[in-house]
Amino acid sequence: MSVAAIPAAEFQERRERLLDQVRLLDAGGYVLFDPAYIQYFTGFWFLSNERPVVFAQSAAGDAAIFVPEFEVARTRAETDFDRIESYPEYPGLEHPMTILARALADLGLAGTVAVDQDGYPGILGYQGPPLSAVTGASVHSVADVIERMMARKSANEIALIRESGRWCAHAHRLLQEYTRPGVTEAEASLRAGHESTLAMLEALGDSFGGQLGSNDGVKAGYRGQIGRRSAWAHAIAHNIEFRRGDMLVTETGAPVWGYNAELERAMVIGTPTDELRRLFDHVVAAQRVAFDALRPGVTCAAVDGAVMRYFEDNDLLPYWRQHTGHAIGLRNHEAPFLDIGDHTPIETGMVFTIEPGLYDDELGGFRHSDTVVVVEDGIELLTSYPSDLESLTLPLD
Amino acid sequence: MSVAAIPAAEFQERRERLLDQVRLLDAGGYVLFDPAYIQYFTGFWFLSNERPVVFAQSAAGDAAIFVPEFEVARTRAETDFDRIESYPEYPGLEHPMTILARALADLGLAGTVAVDQDGYPGILGYQGPPLSAVTGASVHSVADVIERMMARKSANEIALIRESGRWCAHAHRLLQEYTRPGVTEAEASLRAGHESTLAMLEALGDSFGGQLGSNDGVKAGYRGQIGRRSAWAHAIAHNIEFRRGDMLVTETGAPVWGYNAELERAMVIGTPTDELRRLFDHVVAAQRVAFDALRPGVTCAAVDGAVMRYFEDNDLLPYWRQHTGHAIGLRNHEAPFLDIGDHTPIETGMVFTIEPGLYDDELGGFRHSDTVVVVEDGIELLTSYPSDLESLTLPLD
Repeated sequence: MSVAAIPAAEFQERRERLLDQVRLLDAGGYVLFDPAYIQYFTGFWFLSNERPVVFAQSAAGDAAIFVPEFEVARTRAETDFDRIESYPEYPGLEHPMTILARALADLGLAGTVAVDQDGYPGILGYQGPPLSAVTGASVHSVADVIERMMARKSANEIALIRESGRWCAHAHRLLQEYTRPGVTEAEASLRAGHESTLAMLEALGDSFGGQLGSNDGVKAGYRGQIGRRSAWAHAIAHNIEFRRGDMLVTETGAPVWGYNAELERAMVIGTPTDELRRLFDHVVAAQRVAFDALRPGVTCAAVDGAVMRYFEDNDLLPYWRQHTGHAIGLRNHEAPFLDIGDHTPIETGMVFTIEPGLYDDELGGFRHSDTVVVVEDGIELLTSYPSDLESLTLPLD
Repeated sequence: MSVAAIPAAEFQERRERLLDQVRLLDAGGYVLFDPAYIQYFTGFWFLSNERPVVFAQSAAGDAAIFVPEFEVARTRAETDFDRIESYPEYPGLEHPMTILARALADLGLAGTVAVDQDGYPGILGYQGPPLSAVTGASVHSVADVIERMMARKSANEIALIRESGRWCAHAHRLLQEYTRPGVTEAEASLRAGHESTLAMLEALGDSFGGQLGSNDGVKAGYRGQIGRRSAWAHAIAHNIEFRRGDMLVTETGAPVWGYNAELERAMVIGTPTDELRRLFDHVVAAQRVAFDALRPGVTCAAVDGAVMRYFEDNDLLPYWRQHTGHAIGLRNHEAPFLDIGDHTPIETGMVFTIEPGLYDDELGGFRHSDTVVVVEDGIELLTSYPSDLESLTLPLD
């Protein structure tokens, strides 16, 4: 099996498109502090912490990555940046932002500078001055330009999300197999994730990338959405033991070169009641409503509105808790949102989760999430897994 | 085995201490947006995403948690907040910040308001106005006050970090056992993490808390610091196969109620060369220098300075790449830093990693990290694991 990483030419093309916008602002260049943005525009993988990593490019096209000194050797070996600038440590005798200011001046960035944000965010105890203060530049945010670019996925990105979806389904099958009364959440989840990660690493080999930690890979679990707690859309885990009659809501994840699909299913242990079947069938139908509504030219709000009308028409609004879905890609959640308040027009290449849910304090939660890409005449599914109740009913032993 | 979670009275005492500072500012109250800060002051565990979760308390002491609607039932069941305010969805028909502004007015927060930051950060596609804009309040940052509070750990916090350290050591022993030539990084790491997590869950039972995901627990691995790549302090994983002669640098993690210790060791596969032994013995000695220098009243800079002098005196500066350590607690890295540029005075109750390292492009990386708490007459170790070369030499089969 083989899936290609994003090629260098595509990163360059992304930077060119951003530069076009930067030049329209008469800015001297742009500076990125957000790790996800740096990854999107350069493909550089790194551990983000209180030590700033910064990417900058001048309007003339000269680019530099700015890293702590101990990252220089690795950056040289693993990337093809023309220019690597560094600082000794954080906080160090001279603040990294002061050193960055000199590097940016050297790169020709002055006057107006486009940024994702005005300095490095205060994560993990980092403190430092805004970029505008250390450079004297007038900063102009292009975060919304970047978010719009990231929302429309390329063919390469879609292929990676599709591959992620395959491994989500693989892990989901194992999770379903290992979930039985008497087993605990952690037991089923750790086993499914462990085996799926090894299978993915073996199958993809060098085609798999973007692993930061030694055990990063495929995940599958419930995050506490077990029994009545399945009614809590964002429950948290408590290593609960599965019991007969439990309603379950799953989640899976499998970043491939950092790209994520989302696949989730409602399941039940043992024979479902009629009441349970009714809500189950309605979420399947509501997902179908969203699939049918999602196409280029309509707004995100219209898709969520169609689902809300379905719920209203079927007296299901008391069971409503969350919007229809969200964009997904390098980040597990991203803009735009399939929400009645988001008026972003849908475009081809956008990738969304479709996951309308129904929640009842007694019966539990009902939600299937699939990942889709918007194409000329509608959508294509990037995840594939049974969604009928029979397939998602678990035996008692 | 039993380890107590932070008791409710301690969270209240933390809030009282923050309120004392807020009243000194003549502020009407405080508002927190950072998930780690909300956890520190309330013990509330939640999934952080583009939907803001906010905690506020008035100078008079009235407090409210502000969550998306679908979190209300869980918040009511799992916490004892007197007041739970909510918004339907993000972005929704009315922006959550607008709804928050009304809730804050209702709580009596106006005029000057103390904040950790002026609004919710732009994570995962979130966009929204600053708090000052929606409320008209004059905001005053107390982030540094909070960081200073968090830097001095209570007896309860220290007990949780010590417990974390025990599980780091447990996982490290397994990682060491499973690491052999021909095995891959992911194989050894997944197996050690999987088994350690199940063992911890069984041993701690209800004493273990703060698990968000189904498979959150103990981790142990190399994050790519294998062979020559061990010279890269922040390498990333590539599922490398271990080979005879590989120099290795480990990392472990085991959050207990969210609190973390750090335990890392340099190891070698097969008989170490004299050259390797020399650098190995020097990092052990440098760690001892830091242990001896760390005590109340000296500065962070002085501790790092003592290590730097040791390196200088032994002609080791060419192998230097990173400072001596960092504070640790609810976050894996936090301020202050044991760095020549950080002049924070050391106080009792501060918890630090002590991890001076030496790095050679050919030989690899050498770093032991242990976690210590500052006490009246010096330090106490919160992690315990052999650090001599004989114990850290792995057999060839």
